Amino acid sequence: MQYKAVKLVKRPEVRITPDVFEVVSLETPALEAGQVLLRQTHMSLDPAMKGWMSADRGSYIPPVELGSIMRSSGLAEVVESRNDAFPVGTRLMGMIGWTEYAVSDGKGLSKVPPGIPAEAVLCVLALPGVTAWKGFMDLARPKQGETLVVSGAAGSVGSIVGQLGKHVGMRVIGSAGSQDKRDWLTGELGFDAAIDYKSPDLLQELTAVTPDGVDVYFENTGGPIQFATYQRMNAHGRIVVCGMISDYNAEKLSPGPNWINIIRKRLTIRGYTMPDYWDELPDLSRKVGEYLLAGKLKYRAHTLQGLESAIEGINLLFTGGNTGKLLVAL
Amino acid sequence: MQYKAVKLVKRPEVRITPDVFEVVSLETPALEAGQVLLRQTHMSLDPAMKGWMSADRGSYIPPVELGSIMRSSGLAEVVESRNDAFPVGTRLMGMIGWTEYAVSDGKGLSKVPPGIPAEAVLCVLALPGVTAWKGFMDLARPKQGETLVVSGAAGSVGSIVGQLGKHVGMRVIGSAGSQDKRDWLTGELGFDAAIDYKSPDLLQELTAVTPDGVDVYFENTGGPIQFATYQRMNAHGRIVVCGMISDYNAEKLSPGPNWINIIRKRLTIRGYTMPDYWDELPDLSRKVGEYLLAGKLKYRAHTLQGLESAIEGINLLFTGGNTGKLLVAL
Repeated sequence: MQYKAVKLVKRPEVRITPDVFEVVSLETPALEAGQVLLRQTHMSLDPAMKGWMSADRGSYIPPVELGSIMRSSGLAEVVESRNDAFPVGTRLMGMIGWTEYAVSDGKGLSKVPPGIPAEAVLCVLALPGVTAWKGFMDLARPKQGETLVVSGAAGSVGSIVGQLGKHVGMRVIGSAGSQDKRDWLTGELGFDAAIDYKSPDLLQELTAVTPDGVDVYFENTGGPIQFATYQRMNAHGRIVVCGMISDYNAEKLSPGPNWINIIRKRLTIRGYTMPDYWDELPDLSRKVGEYLLAGKLKYRAHTLQGLESAIEGINLLFTGGNTGKLLVAL
Repeated sequence: MQYKAVKLVKRPEVRITPDVFEVVSLETPALEAGQVLLRQTHMSLDPAMKGWMSADRGSYIPPVELGSIMRSSGLAEVVESRNDAFPVGTRLMGMIGWTEYAVSDGKGLSKVPPGIPAEAVLCVLALPGVTAWKGFMDLARPKQGETLVVSGAAGSVGSIVGQLGKHVGMRVIGSAGSQDKRDWLTGELGFDAAIDYKSPDLLQELTAVTPDGVDVYFENTGGPIQFATYQRMNAHGRIVVCGMISDYNAEKLSPGPNWINIIRKRLTIRGYTMPDYWDELPDLSRKVGEYLLAGKLKYRAHTLQGLESAIEGINLLFTGGNTGKLLVAL
């Protein structure tokens, strides 16, 4: 059977241009014992992909090799099986790549419990949910009554962090760049306030909505909201750095804040990435899955149609043009 | 009996000028029951004093009130006693202030074990030693075989941190601004290398002496060494921020490094100040005292003579003009 896949053939410069990809037509092979044939139904587009495409930026996992299929996480269904552990019809999620079909022995893939819609799997249960849980619930040590600021709050991780903050009993403020996103945060997700990181009066606006200062800052973006929130941090505040999306596409990295506040406020600033916690994934997935099935985590998908839509679509992540977790339905 | 003391009467602007102080002549009062009369023999001058003198910089302990005796730690001898716990001849250390004599009920002061020279008490056992131990041994979680960079390495805290690093079995690199200080670090203290933070080739020089990267950065200064070391950090590196002396006297705070490396290297950056750990002081002092009595911690004092020498002398801390822990012998 013929299928399409997308290979990375060039490293991107500043923007991800279409010529870094090549669409190829492949044929599904005959399965060996232990293998399954996967038909991918949905794949996820994530900011980290920019790092995976770039060879020399000191990313935390090796870059995608030129000439190989572009890396991504996705949701797939077993359509042919020579492995009793994964009969036909099994839903699996994991790093499948930009491809319509894939052959696998199941290693590194997780079974998806029934009852969870496909979009919820990739919007919450997969990387965003476990990333949010690990960074926020485990590393930021949130406490009831404290104040949380989340940057990139309408993003896939940020929106879950904010909702977890409300479940903990915190005052939650999110930053987002459009009125539509901010309305979603305060309306549907129950955030206490949402602010525009592009506002010329950002610090005053943040101060007005954080009368007791900020105890936890969950960083997804960098940029002006970083400086404003840093100034509002309380003694013993915790900052967890999950993403710096405003700098992933920057030609020159912008400076950060002076460190003197780290002493004065005895701050802890901690960066993390999920590959360090792969062994905790089953446990984290279980926790997130419980919240998801209980209806405690809302999400919004922005779903593109067809494999090739990813080629231009990935740039929505860096322009803020996506209106929810960016997915591709295959 | 008449004695002299120095009051803070004005908040300093950028530099600490003599007119912020006033020398006063006081008379020792008659003791009440439970009190002792202390004659201070040595007092310590420390960078943190700049913050204590300034009202509006968000320091971690309240500023010295105008019109009151300037705050400092020191070593004193009981010369008159109405408290059986502290007979005449007892040596006590603690926050005594810029004064030749003081009356106390002993609260907040610690007895100094016999056998430790006066200068060692203030150079090591008092704040510098416990500050170094808490920040390095407890918060930075150093491991044998790792590489440590200490900025302000010839300073009172930095020099102890570096020596503790050698006792842990680390490769230790220190930064200091004069050849004399660097010779002391590599010669007497056993550092593996010492570099000049003012060098135009700082990053190359640091790279040459940290072939395996940097696992722990103990920050006392800020400035160029911060940027260079930050670029050399290994995955899971720990940065402990104890001081930012290059910025204490700055009119405008210099920017810090971009946070993207915090994610890529999964760094933890943590600020601390000792008032958060007062309850651990007896335990920390005991540990430092053992090392000191075992001859494992060397120090160098820069001792000024007479109370009033502190008025100009304190600025040596901000020009790097002191050649050891800055003390005043009274």
